[in-house]
Amino acid sequence: MTLNRILIVSGTHGNEINPIWAVNQSNKQLNIIDKNIEYKYIIGNPLACERGCRYIDTDLNRSFNSIKTNFDNSNYEINRANFLVDKFGVNGSEPCDIAIDLHTTTANMGTSIVIYGRRRKDFCLAALLQNKFGLPIYLHEKDEKQTGFLVEAWPCGLVIEIGSVAQNFYDPRIINKFLIIISALRDEISKLKNNQIKLPKGLILHIHQGSIDYPREKNGNINALIHPQRINQDWKPLKNGDPLFIDLEGNTTTYKGEDTIWPVFIGEVAYKEKNIAMSYTKKEVINFPNQSFEEFFN
Amino acid sequence: MTLNRILIVSGTHGNEINPIWAVNQSNKQLNIIDKNIEYKYIIGNPLACERGCRYIDTDLNRSFNSIKTNFDNSNYEINRANFLVDKFGVNGSEPCDIAIDLHTTTANMGTSIVIYGRRRKDFCLAALLQNKFGLPIYLHEKDEKQTGFLVEAWPCGLVIEIGSVAQNFYDPRIINKFLIIISALRDEISKLKNNQIKLPKGLILHIHQGSIDYPREKNGNINALIHPQRINQDWKPLKNGDPLFIDLEGNTTTYKGEDTIWPVFIGEVAYKEKNIAMSYTKKEVINFPNQSFEEFFN
Repeated sequence: MTLNRILIVSGTHGNEINPIWAVNQSNKQLNIIDKNIEYKYIIGNPLACERGCRYIDTDLNRSFNSIKTNFDNSNYEINRANFLVDKFGVNGSEPCDIAIDLHTTTANMGTSIVIYGRRRKDFCLAALLQNKFGLPIYLHEKDEKQTGFLVEAWPCGLVIEIGSVAQNFYDPRIINKFLIIISALRDEISKLKNNQIKLPKGLILHIHQGSIDYPREKNGNINALIHPQRINQDWKPLKNGDPLFIDLEGNTTTYKGEDTIWPVFIGEVAYKEKNIAMSYTKKEVINFPNQSFEEFFN
Repeated sequence: MTLNRILIVSGTHGNEINPIWAVNQSNKQLNIIDKNIEYKYIIGNPLACERGCRYIDTDLNRSFNSIKTNFDNSNYEINRANFLVDKFGVNGSEPCDIAIDLHTTTANMGTSIVIYGRRRKDFCLAALLQNKFGLPIYLHEKDEKQTGFLVEAWPCGLVIEIGSVAQNFYDPRIINKFLIIISALRDEISKLKNNQIKLPKGLILHIHQGSIDYPREKNGNINALIHPQRINQDWKPLKNGDPLFIDLEGNTTTYKGEDTIWPVFIGEVAYKEKNIAMSYTKKEVINFPNQSFEEFFN
């Protein structure tokens, strides 16, 4: 199994500062687990980090589909995406086999895994972490409005998403969660390389279905808030008739739908500009074939 | 007692959005308590609110000492400060007797009152709220690095500061706290105007002593975090030997000082650029003279 070099990205969004700290701390404190695997730690968006903002020109984590095509030379993030792929992509000067992208959210998601599309290698890596920690996995797919995620530019990759934490706020509890995940990932990847691991039986996924915007006035201003009974209730089921929003007069908008859905990224601050109050998912179980890990992963 | 018009300001910092919502909601839902008092509700920094940032050119809530003197015509916030004073100041076209400025913090401060300098009228108003709710009062004074606060431009005024809440995140619990305070303030001010209120015996203050910066590298980068035992512990005593910061290697910096101090604004995101990891206070009790309220307030 080819696992020679792994890319760990933090600061893909410049105001998500806890994973940057965690990576620096893990580099100071972690013992080398496997000398046969090289880890490249990189700040995704250094200029945005310096300025404490999410991005300079455009969201870096939606910029990996514009690479080479429509290359806007004046756009900081498109340039940066090109640089990262040119250097660490599979055909780059220091090719990496897996990309791990570390993010925080202002939503009350706890520690979760995000993957994009149904790639077998991603399933495998995500299943190992789910098997170890019981983490929820959010599979993002079939959303034309949101494409070009960083890890999609590598043959295998996933996002670790931890919240809730305010943008630009150092929270030792959040840092500690990243430290645990980074250490576990290195451990699992080492075992993977050395064929010391069993393929889990499958995994439970939360499949992206779509997003719900805030109710808005004609001028675009938000005119109702996420209902107190729904805010911070990420991963919890939403059923027909459950409250969703509440306006200035106290009027409640409820969810109307026959199917139960599971909202995520509820109230994420950075998604207001994307017209997303929350995204919603359905649950799906994927069973793995009775195959050896090596066969499955490669 | 002259109390004809009261100024309520929200959005003085453009990314503190909960008080703006609370003011709109209270205007929709509150019954008029006293028809003899006119309330002016204003967004402090509308352009920063539109952009979801703290300020455009400079912190509006440090811009009220530059008024008229050194008037920088190209600075958005200095212009805005001038406008607010020209319109709502004591010599303005719609003069207000009291200014209430509503803020949020990412620090775990709960609901608190901030006043600037030892003005008798501020003491009186703050004492009424402390008497009603037991709120802590932070008296900011004698800090040359931080001057020009909005409410100082009015003969009486105070800040209501509520946290913790992330910047740009609508939190119904925080909004509800503002609704309670706005309603209580209107109630107390109405009683004040009509001489229906007793002067409390005094008030307990947390007096600003100074601020502590993060440990930093020579290039200015923060190289230690607020210690897990200190983060979120606003208003709690800090004694000689208590942990303050922890660096990447796990080394702890402790507080060295004979006197007990009470830190506030611990880890406030917006204060990193001001080189403040936390401010610290000492407690003081102020006893009021045996005077009628009218004599004392005027």
